[in-house]
Amino acid sequence: MLKNSLLSKNNQTNLNILYRYYSNISNTKNSPKGFKTGTFACGLKKSGALDICLVYSEKECNVAAVFTENKVKAAPVLLSKSLIDKFNNKGFQSLIINSGGANACTGPEGEKNANTMSTLSSNLVNAKQPSLVMSTGIIGQQLDMIKVQNGIKKAAENLKDDWLSAAKAIMTTDKVPKLVQKSVEINGKTVNVTGICKGAGMIHPNMATMLCCICTDADISEDALKSALKHSIDYSFNSINVDGDMSTNDTVAIFSNGVAGNQKLTDTKSTEFLNFQKCVRETATELAQMIVKDAEGATKFISIIVRGAADEASAKVVANSIATSSLVKTAIYGEDANWGRVLAAVGYSGADVTPSKISMWFSAGDGKNIGIGQKNDPQNSMQFLKDGQPTPKDEERAAKLLSNKDVGIIVDLNQGNTDYTMWTCDLTVEYVKANSHYRT
Amino acid sequence: MLKNSLLSKNNQTNLNILYRYYSNISNTKNSPKGFKTGTFACGLKKSGALDICLVYSEKECNVAAVFTENKVKAAPVLLSKSLIDKFNNKGFQSLIINSGGANACTGPEGEKNANTMSTLSSNLVNAKQPSLVMSTGIIGQQLDMIKVQNGIKKAAENLKDDWLSAAKAIMTTDKVPKLVQKSVEINGKTVNVTGICKGAGMIHPNMATMLCCICTDADISEDALKSALKHSIDYSFNSINVDGDMSTNDTVAIFSNGVAGNQKLTDTKSTEFLNFQKCVRETATELAQMIVKDAEGATKFISIIVRGAADEASAKVVANSIATSSLVKTAIYGEDANWGRVLAAVGYSGADVTPSKISMWFSAGDGKNIGIGQKNDPQNSMQFLKDGQPTPKDEERAAKLLSNKDVGIIVDLNQGNTDYTMWTCDLTVEYVKANSHYRT
Repeated sequence: MLKNSLLSKNNQTNLNILYRYYSNISNTKNSPKGFKTGTFACGLKKSGALDICLVYSEKECNVAAVFTENKVKAAPVLLSKSLIDKFNNKGFQSLIINSGGANACTGPEGEKNANTMSTLSSNLVNAKQPSLVMSTGIIGQQLDMIKVQNGIKKAAENLKDDWLSAAKAIMTTDKVPKLVQKSVEINGKTVNVTGICKGAGMIHPNMATMLCCICTDADISEDALKSALKHSIDYSFNSINVDGDMSTNDTVAIFSNGVAGNQKLTDTKSTEFLNFQKCVRETATELAQMIVKDAEGATKFISIIVRGAADEASAKVVANSIATSSLVKTAIYGEDANWGRVLAAVGYSGADVTPSKISMWFSAGDGKNIGIGQKNDPQNSMQFLKDGQPTPKDEERAAKLLSNKDVGIIVDLNQGNTDYTMWTCDLTVEYVKANSHYRT
Repeated sequence: MLKNSLLSKNNQTNLNILYRYYSNISNTKNSPKGFKTGTFACGLKKSGALDICLVYSEKECNVAAVFTENKVKAAPVLLSKSLIDKFNNKGFQSLIINSGGANACTGPEGEKNANTMSTLSSNLVNAKQPSLVMSTGIIGQQLDMIKVQNGIKKAAENLKDDWLSAAKAIMTTDKVPKLVQKSVEINGKTVNVTGICKGAGMIHPNMATMLCCICTDADISEDALKSALKHSIDYSFNSINVDGDMSTNDTVAIFSNGVAGNQKLTDTKSTEFLNFQKCVRETATELAQMIVKDAEGATKFISIIVRGAADEASAKVVANSIATSSLVKTAIYGEDANWGRVLAAVGYSGADVTPSKISMWFSAGDGKNIGIGQKNDPQNSMQFLKDGQPTPKDEERAAKLLSNKDVGIIVDLNQGNTDYTMWTCDLTVEYVKANSHYRT
């Protein structure tokens, strides 16, 4: 556990940046029809906080999911993956999640326990198929299955429309619950999309960290659902970077039960599908940004905008190189407009850039509308590099721009027409403290 | 410039770790015959320290060099590369280096200045060919060429056998000069190898950081010299990682003038060549390790040993993934034997590992002789993972092991017979402070 002194310091650091988002979270505003959640504090968390979350759908759901690419996969990841394959992405009615233990690096006993969670929870809600399973928390320790089984029973006894409790029950080092609820009109029917996730960087000792569950009452085919999820993840969870480390348990799953009664979405080129996909993408993007904003020790939310790339692959490579540079991230922490470090990160990214074409800006806010051919509001931005060479500096104004909580780094490669945005946070003294001195 | 308070704090942090190496540095013990160096403080450094270094060889040298892969290359890098190509790696007698200005992102004027440095210095020493050029320091600023030209003249007037001054003249944020001198017997002749380098992580704002010059009196063909340099760099400068950031000026060059009078080395399979190559490799490895030990804010020197890999490529990928993990590096800073973070970094490295085969140890010292089938001195090491599952822990003893200044992380993939070692340092509060708050 984190030392109290550090935790309170971190909380203070993050309070401003978090408050804005926490205050936006409301419960059961646009909950997807036909879904219920049950939660319980079974004692896996010593604090006595909620640690079991059961998500249930009256109707059978189509399911799409994306799992960690880490070769070291936790037992629930392996189980959920095999269940989705076995049942061809359909027929699921339940998902069981526990926090307070990741069930990773736990061998055959861990596999047995994940199976028990799956079958017990699906039996309790009379689902035809086993539940999908997600676990998060300490790795390398067996779950206390007496507590877990009791927790699952209690959660199943009290199913209701309470997504905020669900979001709370999956938290580990998160300082705020992460819940987004959106709606979209599809052929005259309201389709609801609700997502919960947890994650605050892969920051905690032996913690497995990022989980997300999105539920929608849309009627949509398995293939279209897969397509919408893949697209949404590319521009949300795959477009954030806290510290470059990837957890053993990362799972994002989407459930659709069709209760909204819209005309079934099957054609991924139709306007209706694209509107639905946009809603899922925005839900996922807001959740992903919440993870960055909740990152341990972070004091700044950084938007990295790469413009004018030859193609999306190179735009991503450049953005990721900047987002993972310790030197860029410490410079932003120090509110130092250090364009040299950004340029170096662009140069070694591996993308085929032309140094003499690169222009660069820093901005307050999200950096939208900054770049070659953009509006370029000089009140909120400052150019530092033009065609590969430094422009005259105004250090004082630069420092003022970067004193904002939200800052943008805009790099125009001037090679093509592709833009791409990635989000990250600064690298701070508090991050290092939180990740090095954690024992009580 | 760094704030004084921070600088002195960093110096204290590093004093112990550095003293051991600094105390080993001696001057002109085994200097390569036929080489001289000239240095001068021309005023590029405000501190008045040495900032010009001229390396001269009486005889024409074969030269091999490796340059940064960063797409953004400084003017001296582009010039030196083109000169070596133009003259087919031979006929060089001089190298001119300045610190206090990297001549990067300086456009056509920067190219002209690099050319001036090259021709002025080669003319002053009556070399047939232009000098190679290296520059290090602030990027994005033009060099003060009046100072530089005066400095080159003064350096050329006072050539002598003084490699320690040469090592000092190329320092920027380095806290110690980096000089290694070695000798090897080749067919009854003593062959000397001397290397100087500079670098302390790419840590300083707008600094371009790593340079290395190795001089030898060996008689060796151009191709054999290239081969020896490539091999040596793979296991030295390409096997260290301070913060993952790559500078715009990284250059490593080796000069051989043949004055030792050994039978010319041409066959890269001969014992004589391999002995010479080993000497160059050891010189380069010691220099590279000095860079890690001098890294801003570092308190630990970490050896990452990957054993039992299927091939060298996968061993390197795994080692690099561990060495660039912020979570692993902060854990070591906190003296926390956090095997979960190491395992996660192995898992997401991209190498095709089998989680259930992986074993892992932490050690005091360099971690040699730890692993499956090794001596495994239990006094200095502790196993944390056996065949993918955690072993019983003794936290107190683990903390004691990791309280050493030198620590090892040993990962046995148990898939093949390839071992590979990489060196890095911890990620500390001082690193973040030094890289974020640098202005006076």
